[in-house]
Amino acid sequence: MNRLTLALDVMGGDFGPRVTIPALSLALAKNPMLSFILFGDQRQASPFLNVLPNDQLKRIQFVHTPHTIDANLPFMQALRKSKGSSMRLALEAVANGEAQGCISGGNTAALMGLAKILIEPLPNIKRPALATLIPSMDGKSSVMLDLGANVEADSDLLIQFAEMGNIFAEVMLDLVYPRLALLNIGVENSKGTQTIRNTDKRLQQRNDLNYIGFLESDKLMNHMADVIVCDGFTGNIALKAVEGAAKNILSLLKRSSEGSFICQSAKRYLLRAIFYRSYRKLQQINPDRHNGATLLGLSSVVVKSHGGASTNAYFYAIDHAIGQIQRQIPDKIWQGLNKLHQNL
Amino acid sequence: MNRLTLALDVMGGDFGPRVTIPALSLALAKNPMLSFILFGDQRQASPFLNVLPNDQLKRIQFVHTPHTIDANLPFMQALRKSKGSSMRLALEAVANGEAQGCISGGNTAALMGLAKILIEPLPNIKRPALATLIPSMDGKSSVMLDLGANVEADSDLLIQFAEMGNIFAEVMLDLVYPRLALLNIGVENSKGTQTIRNTDKRLQQRNDLNYIGFLESDKLMNHMADVIVCDGFTGNIALKAVEGAAKNILSLLKRSSEGSFICQSAKRYLLRAIFYRSYRKLQQINPDRHNGATLLGLSSVVVKSHGGASTNAYFYAIDHAIGQIQRQIPDKIWQGLNKLHQNL
Repeated sequence: MNRLTLALDVMGGDFGPRVTIPALSLALAKNPMLSFILFGDQRQASPFLNVLPNDQLKRIQFVHTPHTIDANLPFMQALRKSKGSSMRLALEAVANGEAQGCISGGNTAALMGLAKILIEPLPNIKRPALATLIPSMDGKSSVMLDLGANVEADSDLLIQFAEMGNIFAEVMLDLVYPRLALLNIGVENSKGTQTIRNTDKRLQQRNDLNYIGFLESDKLMNHMADVIVCDGFTGNIALKAVEGAAKNILSLLKRSSEGSFICQSAKRYLLRAIFYRSYRKLQQINPDRHNGATLLGLSSVVVKSHGGASTNAYFYAIDHAIGQIQRQIPDKIWQGLNKLHQNL
Repeated sequence: MNRLTLALDVMGGDFGPRVTIPALSLALAKNPMLSFILFGDQRQASPFLNVLPNDQLKRIQFVHTPHTIDANLPFMQALRKSKGSSMRLALEAVANGEAQGCISGGNTAALMGLAKILIEPLPNIKRPALATLIPSMDGKSSVMLDLGANVEADSDLLIQFAEMGNIFAEVMLDLVYPRLALLNIGVENSKGTQTIRNTDKRLQQRNDLNYIGFLESDKLMNHMADVIVCDGFTGNIALKAVEGAAKNILSLLKRSSEGSFICQSAKRYLLRAIFYRSYRKLQQINPDRHNGATLLGLSSVVVKSHGGASTNAYFYAIDHAIGQIQRQIPDKIWQGLNKLHQNL
């Protein structure tokens, strides 16, 4: 890859530098042309930075700021108190061209709001949307948006999400004419809110989009659509429900294997092999690998990691940011929307 | 148990009599004092009725009607075309006292609408809500409502759902002062829609309810609350997402065990035992056992089965209806709401 600099909010997320620094170290090890500008509390970060190899430290610039945005602050307060915070400085580094993308695991509402102020939205974008790749049972992925950036969304907004998601799927998943669906509580025309039913009618008239109708949330992971569109409240509820179910079942399976009296016997090795096999299959749907939601609609790549992300999960968020920069997602969205609207 | 008669819409659900009749046969076998009035197409039902033992047939009264409500009909059309349908006749049997409760797997909107017209709502009930018991990882259950009866819900409605859910949990789960939560996309006060934030403020002032705040959908099955309240759209999305994830993971696990080369070897017996153990644990969260949502707020018990329910799952829906009639849920809701409002 070409030289690439990422701005990283070291403090964001539930575990701060304890997770973000080991994760960026993994990314540095994987990508020799990658460097980071880090923003955070030097004192808290030092113990984790000090253990990194020298060749990685050379590719890290640390900007000390003791100030962070509380994950629990309401949006307006967070915005008012954002000056000099690690999240804001990271976004500013992207805005002024020092970095090509930004990653944060901090307050989602603040990240959205600040990104909109500091990083120019693309022309004609009503509101950016949080999009992510969700895993399917067949080992592939679907794009899903919005995941919480817009708690409420009218029909115009949902259609723009559909357009952006469509382009994101084309570029990131190498698809031609991705199958597009609206998340709803049934597949019949009569189901859902007035907004969803209106959006459905309007999308049915769009020949430039491969709209296949409604999708129910029990089919989220069955790869029945390449792009799944919903408002941010619904998307957040649906995705967290899937994540929670997957994590719970994995932990149940783990406990079930560990606690087994047979496991403690001589047959341990055999059992381990089998459970490992199941695990490996189940890891296709492990949320870690799909951590990292992108604010689509901005002129630069901004990736939000899950607040509770592990080192591994945070690494994937960084990895997704790199992939999107390399594939020039913001440019592609801009060009794609232009093309769509010229053809309308 | 005392003598008990249930009205059953034989045709409702994706599979009609193929599922409903074997399921009611299981219920008859379990409960010697139970009898059914069935409504449906005699010709379609006969092959499944004919194989039932004589002592069960004696406890079945069949009312022939060729007319069913299409699951895909919009609400108003379904209502207009409901006269003489299996679903409507089943509800009428409850309304005129021939049966003490009704089960249907048909069109949810039609069932809701007809139930409200035909079966008296309890005094002061704004709108009935679909409630169900959802399984927790610890083997216990939580009450969740609404699951789709009210696609949109204002703060007054959500609070009434909370009150009804509270009483349902007290009676069906034998709880004192059940923990009550609002489903939301975060736990901070600032998260969610205006309606949810308003409801949160109002519930915080209620000393008669054990309100514990917001719950995120990844914790749905972690038994952090006994009653989980949301509008019908959100509840439907969340619950189906969990169901879908659980089903997908179980099927992955099954395939993984069946396909294993070791399984085909001599160690088969051992492996089966272990997988059976995992399965049994996982079956705590198998949606089948928790099939059956109840329309809370009516003067009689009306249970909606999942449209795609298997025989086993449909049996559980019947079983839940029996449990609720025996515990006199409608009376308890009425008494409980009266008591709550006297104390306000």
